[in-house]
Parts: sequence; structure tokens; C-alpha cells
Amino acid sequence: MTATVRQLAEWVRGEVLGDGDLPIEDARVLTDARAGDITFVDGEKHAAAWHASPASAAVAPASIPVNGRPLIRVRDPLMAFAEIVQHLRARPPAPAGQVHPTAAVHPTARLAPGVSVGPFAVVGEGTSVGANSTLHAGVVAGRGCRIGADVVLHPRVVLYDDTALGDRVIVHANAVLGADGFGYRPQNGRHVKVPQLGWVEIEDDVEIGAGSTIDRGTFGPTRVGAGTKIDNLVMVGHNCQIGRHNILAAQVGLGGSTVTGEYVVMGGQVGVADHVRIGERTMIGGKGGVIMDAPANARLIGFPARPELLGKRIWVTLEHLPEMRRDLKRVKEHLGLDAT
Amino acid sequence: MTATVRQLAEWVRGEVLGDGDLPIEDARVLTDARAGDITFVDGEKHAAAWHASPASAAVAPASIPVNGRPLIRVRDPLMAFAEIVQHLRARPPAPAGQVHPTAAVHPTARLAPGVSVGPFAVVGEGTSVGANSTLHAGVVAGRGCRIGADVVLHPRVVLYDDTALGDRVIVHANAVLGADGFGYRPQNGRHVKVPQLGWVEIEDDVEIGAGSTIDRGTFGPTRVGAGTKIDNLVMVGHNCQIGRHNILAAQVGLGGSTVTGEYVVMGGQVGVADHVRIGERTMIGGKGGVIMDAPANARLIGFPARPELLGKRIWVTLEHLPEMRRDLKRVKEHLGLDAT
Amino acid sequence: MTATVRQLAEWVRGEVLGDGDLPIEDARVLTDARAGDITFVDGEKHAAAWHASPASAAVAPASIPVNGRPLIRVRDPLMAFAEIVQHLRARPPAPAGQVHPTAAVHPTARLAPGVSVGPFAVVGEGTSVGANSTLHAGVVAGRGCRIGADVVLHPRVVLYDDTALGDRVIVHANAVLGADGFGYRPQNGRHVKVPQLGWVEIEDDVEIGAGSTIDRGTFGPTRVGAGTKIDNLVMVGHNCQIGRHNILAAQVGLGGSTVTGEYVVMGGQVGVADHVRIGERTMIGGKGGVIMDAPANARLIGFPARPELLGKRIWVTLEHLPEMRRDLKRVKEHLGLDAT
Repeated sequence: MTATVRQLAEWVRGEVLGDGDLPIEDARVLTDARAGDITFVDGEKHAAAWHASPASAAVAPASIPVNGRPLIRVRDPLMAFAEIVQHLRARPPAPAGQVHPTAAVHPTARLAPGVSVGPFAVVGEGTSVGANSTLHAGVVAGRGCRIGADVVLHPRVVLYDDTALGDRVIVHANAVLGADGFGYRPQNGRHVKVPQLGWVEIEDDVEIGAGSTIDRGTFGPTRVGAGTKIDNLVMVGHNCQIGRHNILAAQVGLGGSTVTGEYVVMGGQVGVADHVRIGERTMIGGKGGVIMDAPANARLIGFPARPELLGKRIWVTLEHLPEMRRDLKRVKEHLGLDAT
Repeated sequence: MTATVRQLAEWVRGEVLGDGDLPIEDARVLTDARAGDITFVDGEKHAAAWHASPASAAVAPASIPVNGRPLIRVRDPLMAFAEIVQHLRARPPAPAGQVHPTAAVHPTARLAPGVSVGPFAVVGEGTSVGANSTLHAGVVAGRGCRIGADVVLHPRVVLYDDTALGDRVIVHANAVLGADGFGYRPQNGRHVKVPQLGWVEIEDDVEIGAGSTIDRGTFGPTRVGAGTKIDNLVMVGHNCQIGRHNILAAQVGLGGSTVTGEYVVMGGQVGVADHVRIGERTMIGGKGGVIMDAPANARLIGFPARPELLGKRIWVTLEHLPEMRRDLKRVKEHLGLDAT
Repeated sequence: MTATVRQLAEWVRGEVLGDGDLPIEDARVLTDARAGDITFVDGEKHAAAWHASPASAAVAPASIPVNGRPLIRVRDPLMAFAEIVQHLRARPPAPAGQVHPTAAVHPTARLAPGVSVGPFAVVGEGTSVGANSTLHAGVVAGRGCRIGADVVLHPRVVLYDDTALGDRVIVHANAVLGADGFGYRPQNGRHVKVPQLGWVEIEDDVEIGAGSTIDRGTFGPTRVGAGTKIDNLVMVGHNCQIGRHNILAAQVGLGGSTVTGEYVVMGGQVGVADHVRIGERTMIGGKGGVIMDAPANARLIGFPARPELLGKRIWVTLEHLPEMRRDLKRVKEHLGLDAT
């Protein structure tokens, strides 16, 4: 699909500077762009790369001067570029509102208008699905699930019985919501399973990454607050209460009953022990390990997690640790103190 | 569903103190309970919360005094409460012993009486399933698998060929048992695959969490001992021999050929290198990294894992490390010793 | 199945020393071998174990002397033994080139000769599959995927739209290729999703472990170079460019836009921050955390990752840290220096 610079500018409500009639064939980022492409310049620091690039045109903010090739001036070049890519690469959307003939939908399940169900998907007894939601191929929604409107469940997502999802929730392939929490009691040398009788509750606008697992509560809900975004292969233990608008990067693991405030951010591979409380807007750097409560507005790094400033000082000082030991030995010898 | 306190007490074989005729509508934990609910008090430390709670009744041990609201006295309040929740929230169980018409069961597979197979499940050539086991929707059991009695395989579990499961094994959704071990040999600058010809053997009463992966052995079995409980997203490498009654929390990773004794416990995100031996009853704290053999009855933390006492002392002392370096510098200056 | 030592030797093109007519019933590794078995000796360090073993014969290199039992002399005992195991345990291969009647293959999909598609697999609109590739039960290949020849997709693998796989790629069960990258922009207190419009490109001879996830690029490809081997539960973030012949062990996590050279090796649970460059042939020890660019040919360990030699010195010295603090205190007291 080809379009002129002017057509693209109209799509993104941008201003054309230069030749609006130039035809554009594809859209690629600055590092990959070729002649015939439109690209995007995400601020002044990429101005030099744009000048050196063979791209024929660019989406750019006001801070980028014209250099002979047409520009489309917009406030948010990244989002405008994304819109252009979507237009140029558009394929017709999969037909919506269809239930594939191979899907196994229980007769008591309630599908609102516009719901799509892919091949080999399973919708259990008494489960409801809100308007315009899509259950892709092989999704399993158990019994008694409540799925909101405009939800997308990618292939092979598994919802155990009684899972509740708000509106506009996105769950990526092979994520599992509602598996049993990890609870046992010792009894005569065996680990006896504590029944896991709660459920999982995901509020509006949450996105959950591929392969992540969120366990059901023991008696009540494990909850993920509205607007929270969870990356791939994350583990949320039973009874956790994740606040609104959290960001949990890939491979984060939260022990059972952990509670986070709003706007908490965790980097990749962070681990949090069970029954920990993390205050709102606190950030935990990647690979950090949180073993006790953390206040609000903190920045923590390392394992065990410490305030960022102290943590970085420790990291720097550690590089001198072997030499410190030698020095200390010399000092003690010098003073005639015992080696201990 | 509603029941009187007396009816609930009969279900859990407890003693009623107070008004046994009081009707109970739901069961919630102390932090969530409302009027009309029964809750449970898990020991004296929760007595104050119980007194302040609007709950109408409680399951409680003998140490909790009566305070005007009815109590059900039992030895194990948690387990009794779980039984009550199951009764109050009971839905009719899914019909057992049925093979869904969409399931693809190979004609040579042998299903014992009472076996349930969900929609779109696949049971391969020569595979046997013991009495009363349940294969939920979309389970794939390959060829030559031996599945015991009273086993539950949750949706989308994948068993590669020749996987053997004992009785009462539970495997949660999207776990994968028997994928190829990670074995290659360098040859002319390429990594040449070493065929993985073994299998996976899971003994009785093992539970395996959602999304976990246990790789097949190279020539023989990767084995998980009876009674061992494995949480979500755990990786067990090829040829591992996990002892009986181990506890492996979420996101643990075990390198190939690692061996553990009985009653080993690992916290979340623990990593163990390959070919390591861990003695019985040893505990590894969350996020610990074990790179060499560990004796029995040890408690290890950190990375590299060290005895807990030493490890904690190091953690505490590290907070003083930057100041130690400054002090050492002052001492050297004071003594006129060289900077290096 | 039984075979004589001579027959086995012919299969692996080895030389028989001793009684070639001896019948062999099974093949087991040294630690498990019984009378009637053939085993293998992987070098001189296992000579004593071989002498003590009840095995009836062995595959062995030239360095192992004859001791009365027949030997099969070969250059590469491991690979020869693997061949023997495959012969002795051989079951007839699953019939190839068949599309299971329950598979949902879109009419526009193109399957080359010899392609096998398992039960309940889904092949999307416009997707092509090269000769002799196998899509096992429940695989979902979205729209517009290009799958090479001799590819094996194990059960339940999910390929999102537009995923491209080279020849001889192996993907294990429940891996997910092409899910959305984890990209959001803050806007009025919400995390607004950045559309993820790229794709995943896997070059020839790559193997990907069970449950691993490789996210699609934002606008272009996330790429895994030819010959690279990825273990289970690994996360590769969006826009990563993994070099050729890398080895990524289990539970490794790579942040977005990270780039690695050829022959990079990462141990289990390694984490790499986003936008990091790692030079060719660099090795990161298990559980290491890489937060800045790493040069070529480096060996790094720990978190934050440091050169191996320094890192090990720090680990050793840390064990003395509490005693160093005490010593330093004594020194300061001895000198009458202030405590701070």
C-alpha cells in the first residue's frame, strides 16, 4: 500500500512541511529506514541520525528543522508513526462477532453482542462475556467466569472457574489466571494441601503478558488494580492485592498476600517476599529482592533491596573490597594488632 | 446458600458456643468479613481483629474466649473454615467419568473407569490413565504415557511421550512435562543437539504449578519424589532427581542433573547450578543462588548462597561498607601509609 | 528389542573388542546400568565406575582398556550411545505428512509436501509451512506466518500473526512467539499502550524451550540469530537482536532492544537490562545481572555483573566483611579516631 505524505499527514492530523505529493511506500524506524520510507524522529537527539538517513520523509516534532525532505509535524511522533504504520500495513481485521463452529460454548454461557470466539475455545457453564470481547483460539474460560466488554484473550489463555475480568482487559497467550495458590500445612511428615477457594479479580484496563500466572486467593480474591500492566512470565501469588496503575516487568515474582499501592513500578526479575506491603509510587530496580515492607515514593535496588543511593554506593565500593581487606591487614600489621 | 451455625458446626465436627440457630450467609476472612458472615480466627494474635470485626460468628480454637457472638470450636480453624467455605459456595461438581465428544483419544489408549477427558484433549497412542483421573480441556498426553489414579491435569497441560505420573498427582494449567533437556555439543562452530531420549517420572502426591517445565532426562528419567510440591513457573532441568516432600516455590530454576534430598525447601526465584547435590531438610532462602553442593539441615541465603547467619551479617555490614572505606582511608592517611 | 554387540557396533560404525555375539537388552548410563545392558564411558575419569558396573558392555573411547567385557570403540561415545538408545527403544515414528481431521487450517494457508498438522492445531490466513515440518497438537499459527522446512512446533506453541521461522527451527510446548512488547507511555496518570506493530523473526536452526516468550518488535522485527539455542521460560523483550549461536539458559530475561553478538552464553536466570549491547563470545554466569554494555570475549558474574576474577574475589572477601568491620573499629579505637 502506498500513500502520499499529505495523506499520511491527514491520518495523523499533522502539518506538512515540504513536498506533500511525495509517495511513501513503507514506514521504518530510523535505524532501518530506506529511500521511499517514512520514518520518525523522536526528539532532537535523533536529528543527526535523521539527516544521515536515506528515508524520504519523517514524522517529527517542532524542534526538528526542515532539511529539504518533507516532514509531518506532530506533537507525539511515536504515536503518530504507529498510526501510519498501522495504516500502511493494514490487513483486513479478522471478522468480529463470530463464534467458530469448533468452539465449545456451554449452553448456559452468555455471550454479549459482538463477541468473537476462536476455534477450539471453551466457555464454561454460567460464564458471561461482555460486548465485543474476543476469545482467541484455544482459550479456556472455566465455569462462572465474568468477562467484561472489549476484552481480548489471546490464544490458549486459561481462566480457572470464577475468574472475573473488567472491561478492556488484554491477556496474552498462555497466561493462567486462577490456578491454586501454593498453600500446604505440614502433617505427619507430609504437605497437606490447603484448599484454594477464592478467585482472581482483574480490574479494567489491565494487560497481562504471555505465560504469566496469577493464582486464586485462598478464600477471597487475588486482585489486580485498574490500569496495571504486567509483562511476560510474571508470577502473582495467592491473595495478593496489586494496586492501580502498577508496572510489573517480565519475570517478576510476588509472594502470597503481598499488597502494593498505586503506581508501583518493578523492573524485570524483581522478587517480593510474601505478606509484604509496598507503598504507592515506589520503584524497585530490576533483579531487586524485597523482603520487608517498603514505604511510599521510595526507589530501591539490589537484594536485599536498599535505597537506590545507598545501594549504588555499596555496588561501587564493593569493587574496592579486596583491596580494602589487604589495606586493613597492612594497617593491623603496622600497628601490631592481632590478626584475630 | 444459607446455613445455621449449628449446621456448619456439624459439617466440621466442632462445638457450638452461643446461638447455634443464627443463620450464616457467607464466609469471609477476618479482613473482609461483614455482618451475616462466619469468619475464622487463626490463633490468639487475631483475637483483637475478631473482636473488632462485624462478622456474625467465627470458627476459632480453644484459646479464643466467647464474646457474645457464636463460636465454633475446632482444633484446626483454617481447615475447618475451608470446609465451611466449600459447603457454602458449593456448585454441583462437573460430571465425572465422561469423555467429551471432541476429545481425541487414540484407540490404543486405556482409560480406567471414572476417567474424565475434557474438550479438545488429546490422549496419545498406548497411553494409560488410572481410575478417576481428570484430564481437563486441551490437555495433551503424548504416546506411551502412564498416568496414575486420581490424577488431575488442568487445562492445556502438555505431557511429552513416555511421561509417567503416580497417583493423586495434580498438574496446573500450561505446565510442560518432558520437553527436551538443554543439551548441545560444540562442533565446527555450531551447537549440535544431543538427543534427549529419557523421560519424566513424577511420583505419588506431587503437585506442579501453572506454567512450570520439567525436562526429560537425556537417557533415563528426570524424577520428582513423592509428596513434593512445585509452584508456578519453576524449571527443573534434565536428569534432576528431586527428593520426596520438597517444596519449590515459584520461579525456582534447577540446572541439569541436580539432586536434592528429602524435605528440601527453596524460596521463590532460587537458582541451583547443574550437577549440585543438596542434602535433606536444607532450606534455601528466596532468590538464593546455589553454586556448589550443600550439606543436610543447612539454612542458606543469598547469592552465592551462604549459611543464613553469616549471610545476614554480611547484609547488615554491607550497609556500612561505604563508611568503612572512608574510615580506612582516614586510618591510612593518619598512619602515613600509601594510598594503595 | 535385543541386539548383539556386533549389531550395535555396526549401527554406530564402531570397532568391537571382545565378544561381538553377546546379546544386549537395554542401554543405560553408568549409574543405572544392569547386567544385560550396554552403557557408555565418557572418558578416563569414568573408567573406575565402568570397572565397578554390572553392565555387560560399553561404548568407549580408545583411552579405555579392555577388561574382559566387550567394548565398542568409537570417537564420540555420547553420540554413539544416543544412537544405540534410539535404536533399542525405537517406536515406529508417528506417520508424517498427515493433517489431522480436527485441525483448523485456513483455506489460504499453504502447506508444503510432507507437512504434518496435529489435532486441534490452527493455521491462520495466508500462513505458509515449509516441507516436512510438523505442527503438533494444538499449535496456533496466526495469520501471515512464514514457517520454514523441517520445523517442529511442539504442542500448544503459539505464533502470533506475521511470525517468521527459518528452517529446522524447533519450538517446545507452550512457547509464545510474537506477543505484544511491553510498551506504554504515561498520559494523564494512565499507562497508554504503544501499538506493537512489528514481528518476530527466528533464523535457521534455532531451538526454543518450553514456555519461553519472545515478544514482537514495536515497528520492526525482534530477531534471533541462526543456530541460537534458548532454554525454557526465557523472556526475550521486544526489538531484541540476538546474535547467531548464542546459548541462553533457562529463565534468562532480556529487556527490550538488547543486542548480542555471536556466541554469547548466558547461564540460568541471567537478567539483562534494556538497550544493552553484549559483545561476541561474552559469557554471563548464572543469575548475573547486566545493566550496562559488555565488551566482547568477557566473562562476567554477579549482580551487577563484573569481570569474573574481580567478582570471585569480592565473593570470597565478603565472607570476611563482618570481621573486617570489627577490625576496623579496633584500629580506630586504638588510634583514638572518631567513630564516624
